[in-house]
Amino acid sequence: MQAYQSLLSLFNGHLENYRNTLASKKPAELYEPENYILSLEAKRIRPLLALIACDLFEKDAKIALNAALSVEIFHNFSLIHDDILDKAPLRRGKPTVHEKWNTNIAILSGDVMLVKAFDILNNYDANTLKLLMNVFIKTSVEVCEGQQHDMNFESRNSVSVSDYLQMVTYKTAVLLGCSLQMGAICAEANANDQKNIYEFGKHLGIAFQLLDDMLDVYATDTKKFGKQIGGDILSNKKTYLLLKTFELSNTDQKQKLEALLNSPKAEEKIKGVMEIYDQFNIKTLVQQEADKHTKEAIGHLHLINADAEKKKSLEKMAIGLLNRDI
Amino acid sequence: MQAYQSLLSLFNGHLENYRNTLASKKPAELYEPENYILSLEAKRIRPLLALIACDLFEKDAKIALNAALSVEIFHNFSLIHDDILDKAPLRRGKPTVHEKWNTNIAILSGDVMLVKAFDILNNYDANTLKLLMNVFIKTSVEVCEGQQHDMNFESRNSVSVSDYLQMVTYKTAVLLGCSLQMGAICAEANANDQKNIYEFGKHLGIAFQLLDDMLDVYATDTKKFGKQIGGDILSNKKTYLLLKTFELSNTDQKQKLEALLNSPKAEEKIKGVMEIYDQFNIKTLVQQEADKHTKEAIGHLHLINADAEKKKSLEKMAIGLLNRDI
Repeated sequence: MQAYQSLLSLFNGHLENYRNTLASKKPAELYEPENYILSLEAKRIRPLLALIACDLFEKDAKIALNAALSVEIFHNFSLIHDDILDKAPLRRGKPTVHEKWNTNIAILSGDVMLVKAFDILNNYDANTLKLLMNVFIKTSVEVCEGQQHDMNFESRNSVSVSDYLQMVTYKTAVLLGCSLQMGAICAEANANDQKNIYEFGKHLGIAFQLLDDMLDVYATDTKKFGKQIGGDILSNKKTYLLLKTFELSNTDQKQKLEALLNSPKAEEKIKGVMEIYDQFNIKTLVQQEADKHTKEAIGHLHLINADAEKKKSLEKMAIGLLNRDI
Repeated sequence: MQAYQSLLSLFNGHLENYRNTLASKKPAELYEPENYILSLEAKRIRPLLALIACDLFEKDAKIALNAALSVEIFHNFSLIHDDILDKAPLRRGKPTVHEKWNTNIAILSGDVMLVKAFDILNNYDANTLKLLMNVFIKTSVEVCEGQQHDMNFESRNSVSVSDYLQMVTYKTAVLLGCSLQMGAICAEANANDQKNIYEFGKHLGIAFQLLDDMLDVYATDTKKFGKQIGGDILSNKKTYLLLKTFELSNTDQKQKLEALLNSPKAEEKIKGVMEIYDQFNIKTLVQQEADKHTKEAIGHLHLINADAEKKKSLEKMAIGLLNRDI
């Protein structure tokens, strides 16, 4: 991350300027929630990726600042609405918008943020705008579809591993690819390079999500992971680990697993499910699947026509991200 | 309306084609609500205005079909989310989306419709897209702001008549102006004509809303009006009539009005409030205010450089709209 500190500072300055414009806007109920969620401490991975991509193609990263801001506003709009859907009380350790204000305000301030994401893009000249819109709209629709699939999974009995991979690709991974491609568009990268940087981001996002599922059960450095171990098991979340285990289980094993999922005893449940995971060597399987996507990501990065040193930095940053080092 | 039957049919065909693309899209929970709300019987005023404006400037109305569709999708997105905010059980006589499905699905299907509104615009060439985005984004933000002001009014003790006019301008009127201007942009109308057609639509929208408030109390042809007489009085809705009455009242009169508003007896309440309205000649005052905006609308229409016959038809249509004849 060290290598990108100046790009991050550049974005943070741009975000601060934008937030300053919100401070005085009326009605306050519409703009304070936006200002609030954008003030919460965050890694700013998506906007940073946009700036990195622009810099990778040898253009001043400043020209990608609005693309980066647009993506960050979109991401935060989706967090506000997702938190309503999930009835989440906290986001980044602070009250969610619907908790701090109310659901109506959370819906409407999210809506206006989605419009503002397009408004910020509209600062680009007509031709660049058109190119940015192509990828941004496609991605926005996919993010909504991914969120709907995720909601559907909760009430569905059977979800396949491939359904799951499709869901996380849409819900999480494509926005990383989109951020990078938007930066590349600002830098006028060619179509091939755009495609490769998009695929790099997408596969990186899938690998990240798979490792997130894995760490929820197997994290050794819980501080670095930042979440409660076993939370997914306790809430019966349909993760890659659980779905892969179901896929590999015979009828008896499935019944045993179902019984554990219905158990009210938290400690027993986590221990029991982990024992089954171990029987199937699930930790290795999820790591292998993540590795596959990491390799695919890096493969696409290598295909890009750009400075070798810059590509090396980006690869290092990606590995750091997967290891939760940034 | 007769004069515009062919434009309406043109739009309805385009809408049907669009709805056909939704029918098979997955996840169904995301796209069925959109298909449903777009299937409800509606006058399609906004898309019709877009096509009329395009035709007014002597271009084939077909080229404005996507602008018209975008505006109609945006309008219906705002209805889905507003119905959640208002806890409305019915929309156009049918269950609202959050009633027929649930609030989560209503939020998310609304979100994807907002993105689709931009997606449809993105069918235009880069330069036209840019011009359309300028007015569409400004208007979308205003519609959200108007809705937030409207929500705020419910809990505010004192709302001025001018606050109210600002709110209805944003919540309702600007989208009519925007629809017309977008049609004019598709027809490559000059900036002056664009401005005048926008102002025509905006003032028409304000007049329409004022007359809507008036008819809620004084409609003689209730079938034509289509709503329950006195509904606004019963629900203490801060309409132009009520706010104007407060503005004109002395302390005693205000107290009497407040007491009536708190009365649980429906019939007495409607009768009492109407008596006060009559003392202040409110029916005439609201009609005068509506007339002022109608005249302003027509004034802007006259300034437009276009075929006199076509302008006459549009004026006739506007008057018909205000008289609830279309």
